[in-house]
Amino acid sequence: MSDKMNQIESWLRKQEGRFAYIADPTNVFYLTHFKCDPHERFLGLFLFPEDEPFLICPELEVGQARDSDFGHEVIGYRDDQDPWTFVKKALAARRTDFTTAFIEPSTLPYNKALALKQIDEHLSFQSIEDYLADMRNIKDEHELAAMKKAGEVADYAIKLGIDAIKKGRTETAIIAEIEHELAKQGYTQMAFDTMVLAGENTAKPHGYPGTRQIREGDFVLFDLGVVIDGYCSDISRTVCYKHASDEQHKIYETTLQANLAAIKAVRKGLRIGDLDGVARKVIADAGYGDYFTHRLGHGLGLGEHEQPSMSAANDKTLTTGMVFTVEPGIYVPEIGGVRIEDDVYLSENGPETLTHYPKDLLIVD
Amino acid sequence: MSDKMNQIESWLRKQEGRFAYIADPTNVFYLTHFKCDPHERFLGLFLFPEDEPFLICPELEVGQARDSDFGHEVIGYRDDQDPWTFVKKALAARRTDFTTAFIEPSTLPYNKALALKQIDEHLSFQSIEDYLADMRNIKDEHELAAMKKAGEVADYAIKLGIDAIKKGRTETAIIAEIEHELAKQGYTQMAFDTMVLAGENTAKPHGYPGTRQIREGDFVLFDLGVVIDGYCSDISRTVCYKHASDEQHKIYETTLQANLAAIKAVRKGLRIGDLDGVARKVIADAGYGDYFTHRLGHGLGLGEHEQPSMSAANDKTLTTGMVFTVEPGIYVPEIGGVRIEDDVYLSENGPETLTHYPKDLLIVD
Repeated sequence: MSDKMNQIESWLRKQEGRFAYIADPTNVFYLTHFKCDPHERFLGLFLFPEDEPFLICPELEVGQARDSDFGHEVIGYRDDQDPWTFVKKALAARRTDFTTAFIEPSTLPYNKALALKQIDEHLSFQSIEDYLADMRNIKDEHELAAMKKAGEVADYAIKLGIDAIKKGRTETAIIAEIEHELAKQGYTQMAFDTMVLAGENTAKPHGYPGTRQIREGDFVLFDLGVVIDGYCSDISRTVCYKHASDEQHKIYETTLQANLAAIKAVRKGLRIGDLDGVARKVIADAGYGDYFTHRLGHGLGLGEHEQPSMSAANDKTLTTGMVFTVEPGIYVPEIGGVRIEDDVYLSENGPETLTHYPKDLLIVD
Repeated sequence: MSDKMNQIESWLRKQEGRFAYIADPTNVFYLTHFKCDPHERFLGLFLFPEDEPFLICPELEVGQARDSDFGHEVIGYRDDQDPWTFVKKALAARRTDFTTAFIEPSTLPYNKALALKQIDEHLSFQSIEDYLADMRNIKDEHELAAMKKAGEVADYAIKLGIDAIKKGRTETAIIAEIEHELAKQGYTQMAFDTMVLAGENTAKPHGYPGTRQIREGDFVLFDLGVVIDGYCSDISRTVCYKHASDEQHKIYETTLQANLAAIKAVRKGLRIGDLDGVARKVIADAGYGDYFTHRLGHGLGLGEHEQPSMSAANDKTLTTGMVFTVEPGIYVPEIGGVRIEDDVYLSENGPETLTHYPKDLLIVD
């Protein structure tokens, strides 16, 4: 059994009459190293203060569950069976005086919460999400090693992308080059759909790459990440092709200063909303305040987007061990957009970036 | 406004006091052609029997929402704003005597259902999922055209994969070859993580590709799909490398007969569970009943896995216009596994397969 599962169980022992039902596949992986994407099928990890935990998964996955770090009762069900009958039975075999189930309200589907309630209508729900998110926020040595490697490979992927820029080449063709080179070296899992945008498309922070061809004077924006041992990186870099206008220089330089100022400001105990404010002030002071239309960043780990949300409204504070993105952007319709994103680890000695690709404006020739 | 949205609104007019809150991004796309993957952010399409619909999405996505087929009020929120305050306001500006909200219980997170209830504690919930699933089951001409194309590209991807088989090459290297060739031709979106498994790994129906190298006598199993205009294909083929044992021949031939028998049995009005039974009987009769450990298949469309679930327990019947997979498999530990999967469209004239890659046992040299 993993230390992390032990930690949850110890915590449950302090919570009178409560057990936990973990359904999110990423949280299940976090606690057991059992990797299972059940799609619409049922996956459930049940943890108790005193009783033996159990895990229910599709029959197909039972072997892999037993081979994982879980080390307790694994129950498989076939496609023509109702997993909830197994849940009911397994719960009945344990202590029965539970009053509250800890669940993950922001990912647990409504019908699964309802099904649990049908087993015991007196059961009330509380959230275990914040507790799990706080645990996941703080990376241990093993996790940090994976994230450092993921950062290195992301740097390399940016290099591949910049090398692939050619007049007339499309956004999607550049993506193909990046991912092919990565895959040849065994890096087959991207953290999310790789984004390469050119020209006016860069002004859409969430644009979709397509057949837009590279032209002289374009911004070319990369946003990508890879997965190493389950852990994600997430980097953005923006370059110019052939030449850059004064306005492009100014947009780029402002975004860079916002990125640098925010990273420099990272320290234990700082209110997260205030870190967003540091970058936002740089951009507002340069007159682009209306064009920085998203939060500063997000936590990073097993998920490409994790807690904490690095937004102006977040009153929580930075803690040693966190990994999060710092990704200010300026998006000016017609002209284009720039985003410069790094993954930052808050160590005992202050911020360490896990992504290192150079950030001075590169004009690709 | 799309015909499909009109259809929901007409249906709501027959449901006293009900409105619909659609949160699943795929369903939102189905109804509006607005493509938005909001991750943990809020996305909501609200449809009413009489009032004007509204759509709430991140500020970043508002432009794309307005450019979509939606054509009604689009409300954006920033990362530091609570989208539910906008929902509350927009609902208050409409009829207020709703008693019931139609929701998607199997995907709507518990906390979103709760937030809606906080706006009006008297609101009760009903599911709109079956209605939407039934709509999505039946493909129109435009959807079918996309799926035919997705099937063609999947056939081509299988060819690429088989061409890439070489002694000593790893599973992930073959995946890289397939996806690179596809991407060069503009097919950058796979329907799910491409699976290539070799040798004993093929005995795990949900295995993860890795560094296993191709060896003589291996089964090599491909399971992949592409996305065309939002619509997925999903094909599996299994080949042998250099030579096949008698047992491999028998496993392959049995799986193939199960695949062919099930496709041939497809007809309007047939109970879906019975279609699963057709394939299962072929496999059981050959003595491999215990090794066909999953359902026959699943519906296919905007989702890689949709309703209906082609499982023994499904009492629903096949309807003209449906697209689903037929994918029997036999997985024998140590020896390996075979899966042969086609996408089948039930036309007025009977079953049409959308995937056409040849199915006789191929021994790659």
